[in-house]
Amino acid sequence: MAWDTENTKQQLLDAATVEFSAYGLAGGRVDRIAKNAGVNKERIYKYCGNKEQLFGLVLARQLAYVMDEIQISGSGVEAVVDYAGRVFDYQVQHPELARLTFWEGLERAEPTALDTRQAGAASKVVRLREALPELGEDDARELLLTILTLADGWQVLPNMDRIYTDTSDRDARRDAARRRIVLTAVEALTRALLP
Amino acid sequence: MAWDTENTKQQLLDAATVEFSAYGLAGGRVDRIAKNAGVNKERIYKYCGNKEQLFGLVLARQLAYVMDEIQISGSGVEAVVDYAGRVFDYQVQHPELARLTFWEGLERAEPTALDTRQAGAASKVVRLREALPELGEDDARELLLTILTLADGWQVLPNMDRIYTDTSDRDARRDAARRRIVLTAVEALTRALLP
Repeated sequence: MAWDTENTKQQLLDAATVEFSAYGLAGGRVDRIAKNAGVNKERIYKYCGNKEQLFGLVLARQLAYVMDEIQISGSGVEAVVDYAGRVFDYQVQHPELARLTFWEGLERAEPTALDTRQAGAASKVVRLREALPELGEDDARELLLTILTLADGWQVLPNMDRIYTDTSDRDARRDAARRRIVLTAVEALTRALLP
Repeated sequence: MAWDTENTKQQLLDAATVEFSAYGLAGGRVDRIAKNAGVNKERIYKYCGNKEQLFGLVLARQLAYVMDEIQISGSGVEAVVDYAGRVFDYQVQHPELARLTFWEGLERAEPTALDTRQAGAASKVVRLREALPELGEDDARELLLTILTLADGWQVLPNMDRIYTDTSDRDARRDAARRRIVLTAVEALTRALLP
């Protein structure tokens, strides 16, 4: 993708993030993205390819942010819980990431940026096992998948939350209560997976 | 909704389940449902209301099936794990349920059949606490939400599974491996929530 200004590219990707996060891949409209970004629609197709490719660029950019920002630091079970807490908080602050992830899961058979994401996941697995050397590799992978499912799922199932917890609104207090349970689950699962 | 035959109604709801499960609410097309069910499109609108109402009927019907079929039986932590295992298995066998649930979470601000579902959830909470009287009410609600998030999420995030576990296909073996982890998480969380 080549743009006259980096700024234009960022505006386009920001507008596309808002659009795809709200409406998904099939429901997202390139003409609305073009209008909101102040970019000519034909230029989007020229530089980003089709709508599916633009969706891929958007998701890959969001995933790169979270991969960069959230690292596993320290060691022991508490390092896993600390990492899960930061993943949870990031998802709460950036609900578009979980929404894009689930839209992809529902709408695309082939993952966006598969190689990059598998490499990122593999390095997380390595880092997790440095923090917790007794943890087997398969279990480390499952643990990371569990953390992401619980943190992402929390953003995308507000109706289920309303039905099961009888709360009518999601607010900071409800986020904190759910965070406590997710971290309790992550800590308990981590301990259960250790030999 | 009044139909000349119950059979026609079932055919329509079956076709609508396939359509909405695949494409969601915005992406699902009533004319495709009409064609696949062999029912006139105007008749669908007349008896089921608009597309959103038809989506609601479809999801409510699927939820009624699972609510009827999967009960918490027995007592103790093992009853919770046994229940979670049957929820997981049901989701694997009926992937349309998880897909509809996440489409609803992404596409609808207001839950389908809220009162019925809250009543169903409340009775599950009561039953769970009969099985495990030491469990607090709030924790029982969170535990049920955790079981559903893990079981539903597994169906809807095949890409994430592929990225984190490096498997290229979901098969019975992968389902069994993931089932073991989900049940380990449920058991460990349940024990951690007990006083």
